[in-house]
Amino acid sequence: MTETTPKGFASDNNAGVHPEILKAMVLANTGHTRAYGDDPFTRRAVDKFKKLLGETIEVYFVFLGTGANVLALQAATRPFHSVICAETAHIHVDECGAPEKFTGCKLLTIPAPDGKITVDGIKAHLHGIGFEHHAQPRVVSITQPTELGTVYTPEEIRRLTDFAHENGLIVHMDGARIANAAAALNVNLRDITADAGIDLLSFGGAKNGMMYGEAVVFFNADSARDFKYIRKQSMQLASKMRFISVQFEALLTDDLWWKNASHANAMAKLLAREVERIPGIRITRKVESNGVFAVLPPHLIPGLQRKYFFYVWNESASEVRWMTSFDTTPEEVFDFIESLRQAVAET
Amino acid sequence: MTETTPKGFASDNNAGVHPEILKAMVLANTGHTRAYGDDPFTRRAVDKFKKLLGETIEVYFVFLGTGANVLALQAATRPFHSVICAETAHIHVDECGAPEKFTGCKLLTIPAPDGKITVDGIKAHLHGIGFEHHAQPRVVSITQPTELGTVYTPEEIRRLTDFAHENGLIVHMDGARIANAAAALNVNLRDITADAGIDLLSFGGAKNGMMYGEAVVFFNADSARDFKYIRKQSMQLASKMRFISVQFEALLTDDLWWKNASHANAMAKLLAREVERIPGIRITRKVESNGVFAVLPPHLIPGLQRKYFFYVWNESASEVRWMTSFDTTPEEVFDFIESLRQAVAET
Amino acid sequence: MTETTPKGFASDNNAGVHPEILKAMVLANTGHTRAYGDDPFTRRAVDKFKKLLGETIEVYFVFLGTGANVLALQAATRPFHSVICAETAHIHVDECGAPEKFTGCKLLTIPAPDGKITVDGIKAHLHGIGFEHHAQPRVVSITQPTELGTVYTPEEIRRLTDFAHENGLIVHMDGARIANAAAALNVNLRDITADAGIDLLSFGGAKNGMMYGEAVVFFNADSARDFKYIRKQSMQLASKMRFISVQFEALLTDDLWWKNASHANAMAKLLAREVERIPGIRITRKVESNGVFAVLPPHLIPGLQRKYFFYVWNESASEVRWMTSFDTTPEEVFDFIESLRQAVAET
Amino acid sequence: MTETTPKGFASDNNAGVHPEILKAMVLANTGHTRAYGDDPFTRRAVDKFKKLLGETIEVYFVFLGTGANVLALQAATRPFHSVICAETAHIHVDECGAPEKFTGCKLLTIPAPDGKITVDGIKAHLHGIGFEHHAQPRVVSITQPTELGTVYTPEEIRRLTDFAHENGLIVHMDGARIANAAAALNVNLRDITADAGIDLLSFGGAKNGMMYGEAVVFFNADSARDFKYIRKQSMQLASKMRFISVQFEALLTDDLWWKNASHANAMAKLLAREVERIPGIRITRKVESNGVFAVLPPHLIPGLQRKYFFYVWNESASEVRWMTSFDTTPEEVFDFIESLRQAVAET
Repeated sequence: MTETTPKGFASDNNAGVHPEILKAMVLANTGHTRAYGDDPFTRRAVDKFKKLLGETIEVYFVFLGTGANVLALQAATRPFHSVICAETAHIHVDECGAPEKFTGCKLLTIPAPDGKITVDGIKAHLHGIGFEHHAQPRVVSITQPTELGTVYTPEEIRRLTDFAHENGLIVHMDGARIANAAAALNVNLRDITADAGIDLLSFGGAKNGMMYGEAVVFFNADSARDFKYIRKQSMQLASKMRFISVQFEALLTDDLWWKNASHANAMAKLLAREVERIPGIRITRKVESNGVFAVLPPHLIPGLQRKYFFYVWNESASEVRWMTSFDTTPEEVFDFIESLRQAVAET
Repeated sequence: MTETTPKGFASDNNAGVHPEILKAMVLANTGHTRAYGDDPFTRRAVDKFKKLLGETIEVYFVFLGTGANVLALQAATRPFHSVICAETAHIHVDECGAPEKFTGCKLLTIPAPDGKITVDGIKAHLHGIGFEHHAQPRVVSITQPTELGTVYTPEEIRRLTDFAHENGLIVHMDGARIANAAAALNVNLRDITADAGIDLLSFGGAKNGMMYGEAVVFFNADSARDFKYIRKQSMQLASKMRFISVQFEALLTDDLWWKNASHANAMAKLLAREVERIPGIRITRKVESNGVFAVLPPHLIPGLQRKYFFYVWNESASEVRWMTSFDTTPEEVFDFIESLRQAVAET
Repeated sequence: MTETTPKGFASDNNAGVHPEILKAMVLANTGHTRAYGDDPFTRRAVDKFKKLLGETIEVYFVFLGTGANVLALQAATRPFHSVICAETAHIHVDECGAPEKFTGCKLLTIPAPDGKITVDGIKAHLHGIGFEHHAQPRVVSITQPTELGTVYTPEEIRRLTDFAHENGLIVHMDGARIANAAAALNVNLRDITADAGIDLLSFGGAKNGMMYGEAVVFFNADSARDFKYIRKQSMQLASKMRFISVQFEALLTDDLWWKNASHANAMAKLLAREVERIPGIRITRKVESNGVFAVLPPHLIPGLQRKYFFYVWNESASEVRWMTSFDTTPEEVFDFIESLRQAVAET
Repeated sequence: MTETTPKGFASDNNAGVHPEILKAMVLANTGHTRAYGDDPFTRRAVDKFKKLLGETIEVYFVFLGTGANVLALQAATRPFHSVICAETAHIHVDECGAPEKFTGCKLLTIPAPDGKITVDGIKAHLHGIGFEHHAQPRVVSITQPTELGTVYTPEEIRRLTDFAHENGLIVHMDGARIANAAAALNVNLRDITADAGIDLLSFGGAKNGMMYGEAVVFFNADSARDFKYIRKQSMQLASKMRFISVQFEALLTDDLWWKNASHANAMAKLLAREVERIPGIRITRKVESNGVFAVLPPHLIPGLQRKYFFYVWNESASEVRWMTSFDTTPEEVFDFIESLRQAVAET
């Protein structure tokens, strides 16, 4: 169809839906089933999550990633709390202030040149504890992989969660692309969540081949007690829930989540490897998941964007971001590389 | 598939997706397109809305009906305002307090035995104007059709909007099932919205054959100025927007919205006609759209629910609600009637 | 001074400050003391409260009555809860929507012709429990005396609190004029609070001779755990706290709170007794505390207001409210009665 | 009285009330006057403000400084906006997250080693304009004098306001100690507010000799249109308003505000001059208003605090803050210096 731009490198959410997932949605479109999640599709999807992440979790489906993040934070806080995160965090930069609006909490940011926060960064915000004039730190939120494409190792996560727990803090993981992190590290999802001390997880779907739908996972089921009310009041309870549930069921079947993510990662590696050979273009961040950041001459950007759309990450530095997705093909990568090469050559 | 309960009369959102709509979603799953609504699918769907409701409208797609209502109210208010509605209104009864939480406004209710409010009902709340101790009335919200299945005529709406406008109030319509109202009245959508003085509309999709997706329509485009920020901050901006947009495009093509709705209405009429012939069951509300309310002996209810699921509306009165939908068949209605008849006979 | 209108019957908060209280404030103005309540004045005032209401209470001072009410509700709720109150309640009618804005909760009102709510009134709102679409009832709030000047007996309160507690609800008392209730009933403050099952109390100061300052009293100290943060974040933590504390200390010394209140009550009784003798003026509510409601010919009102200011309570019924206060004198009552008599006679 | 600690250097809000102000309060305690600000005391105080700051201002009295700041921000924003301030700003550090809770806005901080922000600091946050994923910058808030005791010159303010206005931003000044700034600069209040481009001002009272009460000043009266509702809903409308108003009237009469502030400033200068002569104590910030920051050996601090209470500003650096106030005497300064000298000598 002419309406879709040719595949580009703008974002994994510019992609469509993985065929297996779409097929599951089509097959689910039969008869009536109870709305709002009281249905067998949802029970099966929840079971898949429990197999993957632990039998004692609680998992709730919501519409979108911002919703998953904000609702997870709301479940864990009261308005006089604060949330500590990287200054590049999606919750700080890309959610139009939704966390503040809906939780009432203050966000405290940590400089994070590579997207990752450290114990020292958290420590800098741990003052005024018990002092009523000061919003009380309550949650540390990390993104895995980070917004800059880097990945926390299980050990790095453990260091953060141990420190956080010793200081009475809960750790939330924004896992909008968590599958890419697991695939990149070649570990189980548990290794970077439950077993690394994560308390609360936003589990991403739309960036890994789903149409819509994300999940909020509680590793401590107690803390999910009131969550059903929070989800409804926060406008994240889908009536025809089965169509989110079957997407997750398909994604978690036969390791589709892993395959999609590792493919996207591989395409990013390929792209990065080829880009490195082009003089005049410099890769700026470690390529650890499915994003490649690079600086290139600014006048080349508009022409390239016309063929393969992508976003400028940092205008003043002429730094762009190229994202690969489950459906990126090697041919597209090579074709894009060719375009890059020509553009540079013509300069 | 065994996972779906047999079709029932619980709610139009227990139904699946209309085949034409699902087909459009499948066809849209090709290539990449820009996320968040900057795409040709969305532009086409918006054009369909403009053809239907007026070229000067602004329309924004959101995930769900509660989201449409709450965001519409937020666009029209500041926290010191109040919103006047029927005591049966979805925004008051069925949204877990989302309007209060997200707008900060007070809801003021009007007794509405048939689901409809009147000028006198509004008038009773118009005091304390300009008095800072009192939340200032700002919006009147009506539901069309009402939660009790009744329908406002264009003239009834006009009386309310005229009075509201004379008193500096904005009128919002919760049109989760607006198609059913238009079909029932045999009028254009404009007749019961723009041309009847409605300022703000929640336009329903999921209850009329869509998978997910509702629209907020501003009849005064000026008042939509900041709405894109409100939508994002309120967690209602879909990344893969095209899949909402093509649903609306399909729904608004070849009058599918009308066909679905008038079919559902017809099935409700049929159901009501047949029920009236059964002694011991009493229909309690005018059947004007796709819902039938009836009182029946309480001990019959559980058995009937096992075969055709439906909800008890008012436990103490033993009043139940039967909803029909775009996919209800006459056979199902007659079969259900047969079950009712038998149940009554066996008593 | 010419700036003060002659004493009127508008409200007990049109009065000034009781001389003993003002004296205490003047005497407290010596040297430096720690801000925000970490001072000996505050400790002494808290001790006075504990002697009066129980050693295990927690008490926090705030600036004003709306603040006391809203903060008490916030301590007891999460945003998906609802608060049940009389439709005449100050929290519903006179706080410009502050409870909704700051707690996020829905307010559910009960018709209360005499200002008092009943078990049946509460019961009518106890549905949808555990149903996530419905804001969950959490607090019952009663006003003592009510906004209509009536007073709950200890037994009436106990019936409400027993029922509430059986249903998992907390009971808050808006005691902006609680002293007037205790004096009217000739009971201890404990009889109508702790011993009657009240969980949370807004204890009024400004309407009983203080300049400013109210108290939030927790009868269950556990539920006050985070309240210091709520008070600060809600902009109710006074820096020079000693000047609130010494007012409360004075008010609670030598039964000044009781004397002020019983004097005001007596003046209302006197006023009511004399008004009843004037033909053409009809008292509309039981006079149980310090307010008198009456219907009189509308054309008389403006002339009377010029001499003794008071408010029209219900314009359409020509019903006015006359409040007495700690400083109302019998001479003023008789003089006002004389004015009323003349006005009626001249008609 | 034994309850007051001897005067210390903890904070200007540990001081009491200036005798002239207390006298005015006592004199105002006569007869009845209308509540909530509809009274001649308030009108006179407002007139005083207009004489001082401009006839076209709107001014509203509130209870406390946090209230003034938060309400000013709320008047200027919608929840999807952001507020830019120094990382040391009171609104960021000392208000327990009240700005986020009550406005819904995000706070964006600027590193400010001397407490002052610069155009470059603002500029760094001006990205994502018009991009719905990003909270939209709307207000720049500066503190005058800053939390570190430094003072913006009129030219410095003008540079900030010019830049802000060019970029569609409003400028708020937290003037909790604005009198100290004016006195320090030897300028009129207008020179550092209206005439320097300030749009919104929190005007402090309690830190300059008042008991309680601050003012929100709108230099553009239009933007105050709905403020009376915001004040009431935000729990900042005093019933017995006259007692705030007469304090302001007294403060603004015969330049009392100036005298108090310049005295406090002079005492800080004296303290700083003498401290500089003591070896082993190092002053860390420019002394431009009524605060002195110094580093001294940590083991000396507890002993000194017992005699003259003060706060540690930065534990890890052993940096303390000494504040002077309207009632600090030279004798107290010299006595404190003597204590310091002895403590250092005994080491």
